[in-house]
Amino acid sequence: MKQYAGYLIDLDGTAYKGIEVIPEAIEFVKRIEKKGLRHLFVTNNSSKTPTQVAGHLNQLGFRAGPDDVFTASLAAANYLYEKHPNARVYAIGETGLKEALAEKGFELTDSRPDAVIIGIDRDINYEKLAKACLAIRDGAEFYSTNSDAAIPTEKGLLPGNGALTSVISYSTQKEPVFIGKPHRIIMEQAHKILGTPKKETIMVGDNYDTDILAGMRFGIDTLLVHTGVTTPEMLAQRKEQPTYVVSSLEQWEIR
Amino acid sequence: MKQYAGYLIDLDGTAYKGIEVIPEAIEFVKRIEKKGLRHLFVTNNSSKTPTQVAGHLNQLGFRAGPDDVFTASLAAANYLYEKHPNARVYAIGETGLKEALAEKGFELTDSRPDAVIIGIDRDINYEKLAKACLAIRDGAEFYSTNSDAAIPTEKGLLPGNGALTSVISYSTQKEPVFIGKPHRIIMEQAHKILGTPKKETIMVGDNYDTDILAGMRFGIDTLLVHTGVTTPEMLAQRKEQPTYVVSSLEQWEIR
Repeated sequence: MKQYAGYLIDLDGTAYKGIEVIPEAIEFVKRIEKKGLRHLFVTNNSSKTPTQVAGHLNQLGFRAGPDDVFTASLAAANYLYEKHPNARVYAIGETGLKEALAEKGFELTDSRPDAVIIGIDRDINYEKLAKACLAIRDGAEFYSTNSDAAIPTEKGLLPGNGALTSVISYSTQKEPVFIGKPHRIIMEQAHKILGTPKKETIMVGDNYDTDILAGMRFGIDTLLVHTGVTTPEMLAQRKEQPTYVVSSLEQWEIR
Repeated sequence: MKQYAGYLIDLDGTAYKGIEVIPEAIEFVKRIEKKGLRHLFVTNNSSKTPTQVAGHLNQLGFRAGPDDVFTASLAAANYLYEKHPNARVYAIGETGLKEALAEKGFELTDSRPDAVIIGIDRDINYEKLAKACLAIRDGAEFYSTNSDAAIPTEKGLLPGNGALTSVISYSTQKEPVFIGKPHRIIMEQAHKILGTPKKETIMVGDNYDTDILAGMRFGIDTLLVHTGVTTPEMLAQRKEQPTYVVSSLEQWEIR
């Protein structure tokens, strides 16, 4: 087991499951801090602001500030700002996305936007989807915070933002630029914020298809923990394996 | 040019374009009737009842009754009735679908349904999509009236039912049984109603990807008319060509 200077850590399924904390994750983060190492929580959640996410973490027993949390909405707003700082943006999404865009100074509009961006929106309706399709057919750029198929909830697996995004891509036959895990964009930004050398940085998460693939594609080591989505049986079917696998973060020694 | 005893005729793009009639189509149908031949309008529209569609046709100058119109919703209700007559059904859709299911005596419910069916629904929302996903993950059968990517409107191309359906298929990783053109189910039923031998039956429409493919897959001759979606340039790129192509139905001689 190598020594790592920086940890990129997934949230849902890794630090908590909905409203239920995963206690070993609290200890894991404490051990990282005690060694003076760096960490950053990296989440595909686009609906909440970093302040909201940090608030949830603190309620569960973590000690976290907004700067410890990096969301797909922040990454999306940063990316769009790099590419097209004066873009007039049509955004479908919740508070996390709207605030991230507003903080970068983007003008939000549904009239002839330069770019369309979609994040999870539990108030989705036909009119919003229609406006997005019309704008994209009219030449607007197309971004999506993340390609998640489903969101785990108390009720079961509900449609994720990838599913909502597919309305637009199916209808317009245009694929968006995806920002979140397993795509590189969020990883590049998160890694830059973390500031540790790539070889000394590791991605930690429970979901092979988002967290682990994100780490692999970005070219860093990965640690899969079986406290969430990906079971040992699911993992056995994958050709490319994570660098490390543990059943609980308790098993991971911080050196 | 062969003689045909029965004509299956598409509506949008062939008989009319939204609220605008295609006058050659009126004459075309009159000429079919004058020769004592059979015809049936076959539409992927799932939102309207046959009575509503016939009403629209009459307003535009056609003479049509509800029995002259066969919708994807009727075909869906018939198909489900054949497969599963006592099914408790969760339906996402508009009047055309709800009425077709009610006429077959299906119990509509959102609680533990045996089958989920989706047609275009301009009142779509997250809760409806979530219920569909949960039911399908729980084992319910999955049907979709049609796979259309877009609906032509005065505003432009808005999301079609195939686009809405993709939320559920993307999220659950389950593909629905599609009923409408280009799929066989609607064609089999329409042909049975028409009652003419397959070799003497022709499918007439403006859209290669729905009408013409439907005819080809069902194994009947096809007539593409360039008054709607598929342009000559688009058609040129297709390997398998329709049996006949005309720029207007005026050019088609009824023998």
